[in-house]
Amino acid sequence: MSIPPPATPGSPLDAVDTPALLIDLDAFERNLARMAGRLAGTGIRLRPHAKTHKSPVIAARQIALGAVGVCCQKVSEAEIMVDGGVPDVLITNEVVGEAKLARLAALAARARIGVCVDDPKAVAPLSAAARRFGADIDVLVEIDVGQGRCGAASPEAAVLLAQELAAAEGLTFAGLQAYHGAAQHIRDPRDRAQAIAASADVTRKTVTALDAAGLGCATIGGAGTGSFEMEAAAGLWNELQPGSYIFMDADYARVGPPAGGEPFEHALFVLATVMSRPVEGRAVLDAGLKAHSTDSGLPVIRGHQRLVVTGASDEHAVMEGTGVPALGERVLLIPGHCDPTVNLHDWYVGLRGLAGPEPLVECVFPVAARGALF
Amino acid sequence: MSIPPPATPGSPLDAVDTPALLIDLDAFERNLARMAGRLAGTGIRLRPHAKTHKSPVIAARQIALGAVGVCCQKVSEAEIMVDGGVPDVLITNEVVGEAKLARLAALAARARIGVCVDDPKAVAPLSAAARRFGADIDVLVEIDVGQGRCGAASPEAAVLLAQELAAAEGLTFAGLQAYHGAAQHIRDPRDRAQAIAASADVTRKTVTALDAAGLGCATIGGAGTGSFEMEAAAGLWNELQPGSYIFMDADYARVGPPAGGEPFEHALFVLATVMSRPVEGRAVLDAGLKAHSTDSGLPVIRGHQRLVVTGASDEHAVMEGTGVPALGERVLLIPGHCDPTVNLHDWYVGLRGLAGPEPLVECVFPVAARGALF
Repeated sequence: MSIPPPATPGSPLDAVDTPALLIDLDAFERNLARMAGRLAGTGIRLRPHAKTHKSPVIAARQIALGAVGVCCQKVSEAEIMVDGGVPDVLITNEVVGEAKLARLAALAARARIGVCVDDPKAVAPLSAAARRFGADIDVLVEIDVGQGRCGAASPEAAVLLAQELAAAEGLTFAGLQAYHGAAQHIRDPRDRAQAIAASADVTRKTVTALDAAGLGCATIGGAGTGSFEMEAAAGLWNELQPGSYIFMDADYARVGPPAGGEPFEHALFVLATVMSRPVEGRAVLDAGLKAHSTDSGLPVIRGHQRLVVTGASDEHAVMEGTGVPALGERVLLIPGHCDPTVNLHDWYVGLRGLAGPEPLVECVFPVAARGALF
Repeated sequence: MSIPPPATPGSPLDAVDTPALLIDLDAFERNLARMAGRLAGTGIRLRPHAKTHKSPVIAARQIALGAVGVCCQKVSEAEIMVDGGVPDVLITNEVVGEAKLARLAALAARARIGVCVDDPKAVAPLSAAARRFGADIDVLVEIDVGQGRCGAASPEAAVLLAQELAAAEGLTFAGLQAYHGAAQHIRDPRDRAQAIAASADVTRKTVTALDAAGLGCATIGGAGTGSFEMEAAAGLWNELQPGSYIFMDADYARVGPPAGGEPFEHALFVLATVMSRPVEGRAVLDAGLKAHSTDSGLPVIRGHQRLVVTGASDEHAVMEGTGVPALGERVLLIPGHCDPTVNLHDWYVGLRGLAGPEPLVECVFPVAARGALF
C-alpha cells in the first residue's frame, strides 16, 4: 500500500490529516450490536455484506457478535477476507471466466465458499474448476426478485439450474439468492414493503417449484439495510445480508429507520478541511469526488443544519450557508453512499469519544480489499 | 500495493482479467502528439494536469514532448511525481494545514514546486514553512474567473495578495492561476467561448491592476481540454494545464472537438465481462461504480451503437439494446469521467494494436498516485 495512513493511534482528532475516512467507533459498535440484537433468537442467520467495509478486521467484529460469515461481491474480495481469517464467505454474485473460477475453487479448498449462478452455461465451468481443486462449492441460484439486474427470470429456470447444480460434481445446490437491491432505497416504507412483498411472492413460488422437484433450499439469502426487517418478517428468508447498517450514509438516512428498535447511527465520516474561503457564505473543502462518492447524492455536513454541500468536483466540495467555518477549520462529511466512498480510501481511522470533548484515534487499519475488482 | 495487476506484458488482450483499466497506446500517443503540436511555436507552455493520470510514467512522456512539467492537485500527488523523476510540479490548488505545508516545503527543497493561494491568511504559514526548509516556492495567486469555487474575488484582492507574497521570505510571486473548470464542459462552443471571454476579461483586469502596482506575472496559467484553444487564442495565458486530452472520456466527447486540428481520441477504457445474461436484450457487466465513475454520466460502450449502459450499481453495469453480447464476452467501456475512474484502479494496462486483429499488452504500470488525497 503506497499511501501512508493519515493518522497514528493515540493521537487526537486534530492531528488527523485530511481528507481521512473516520469511523466513530462508539456509534459503529452500537450499530453492530443493534443488528445482532434484531436477529438474535429469530433463527435467522446474519451474513453481513463485506462489500461495504472491505475489511477482515470489521468482519471479525461481526462474526464475534454471531454472524455466520460474510458476503463478498468479488473473488479477490473473498481472498482477502479468507487471508484475514474469515472462514466462511458467500460471493453474492456470478463469477465468470476461467481465471476467476480457478481462484474461486482454490479458495474453496481452504475455506467454506459459496457463489451464485443464474445461467446454465455457468454450471459446467464452475464444476470443472471445483473438481480440479478437489473443492466443494456451495451454489445459490440467484433469482430476479424485482431488481431487474441478474437472476433467473422464472421459477422454471431456477428449477432447471438447481437440478443441474445438484447433479454437478464438486458443487452443492445450497438454495436461493433473493436480493432486491433497488428496494433498499425506496423512500416510502409502504412502497418498500410492497416491493419486498413482491420479492417474497417470487421467492415463495420458486421454493414451491423446487420442493415439487424434490430440491430443498438450505439457504434463502437476501435483504439489505433498508428492508431487512421486512425479509425477516416474511418467514421465508433465513440468511440476511445487510452491509450499510454498520456505517449508514446520507442516502440511507433519507430512507429512514426500521419500524422496530433503535435506528442505526451515522458512524462513517470523511474528515475535510476548509482550504478556501473566497467570499462570505462559501467555503471550499479539500475532499471531492476522489474522497467521497456522489452517485447517491452529495455529502451532508455533520452538526451544521444551516450549511449545505452545493457541489463537488475531483478534489473540492463547495459548502454554502450561514455559519460557514473559517479557513483551516475541519468538518465531518456524511458520505452520500458509504460503499464506494470506503473504496476510495486506503485507511480507516477509528475514533473513540467522537461525541465527547477529546476524541482520540484508537486504531488505524487498512481498507484491505479496496480496489479488489476481480 | 496489495492488488495484483490484471495482466502481464506480452500477453494478448484476451488474457487480461476484468475489470481492467486499459490504455490504447496508439490513440494515447496520437493525443499526446496532437496537444504538443497545437502549442508548438506559439510561445505558450504546456503543463499538463497529472490529476488525470496520476502516473510519473505518463508525466515523463508529456515532458519528453515539450511539457515544462506537470500540475497536481495535492501535495501527496506532487511527492509521487517528484519521486518518479518529475523536476517541476505546480500544485494548482490551495494547501492548508501545518503538516501539508511542511511536506510542501520539504518537496520544494528538492524540486521546483509551485502552489496557489487565494487568502492573505495563507501567506505567513507558507512563508514560515519555506524558510524552515530553506526552500523557495513559486506562488500563483488564484483568481475566480467564473468557476465560483476558489480564487480571489477581485483584482484589488489579488493585488494585495501578490504584494504580500512579493514581500514574503521563501516565496516568489509567480503570477496568476486563472482556471475556469466548469467552462470545460459547456456543450455549445459559442457559450463556452463566451465563458472563456469572461474569464479573459477578469484576468486582464487583474493583470492591469498588478502592472499598476509594479507586479509582473511570469505565469498566467489555466485552461483545460474543453477550452484550451480559446485561452491559447486570448493572448493572455502563457501556460496551459489540460489533463483529459490524453484519454478523453464520454463527457468530453459530448463537449465536442477543438475548432482547429484533429480531435483527441478515446484512449482510456474499462474492460468488462458479461457476467449475467438473464433475459433477451439485457447483459450485466462486472464493472460498476467501483470500476468507473458515474459523476459525469454512465459509460458508453465502444463499437456498439445499438447498445446502451442503462444503469450502474457498486459492482454491476446493466447493458441493454440489440446485439447484446453473450455470457463471458467482453466489452470496452468509455468512462463518463476519466479522472475519478483512473483513481479507482491500481494498474494501467497499456495495449498496442487495439484497433487491429491481435491487440497485445505492451506495458503494465501502477496508477502511482491513486488515492493520494492529502
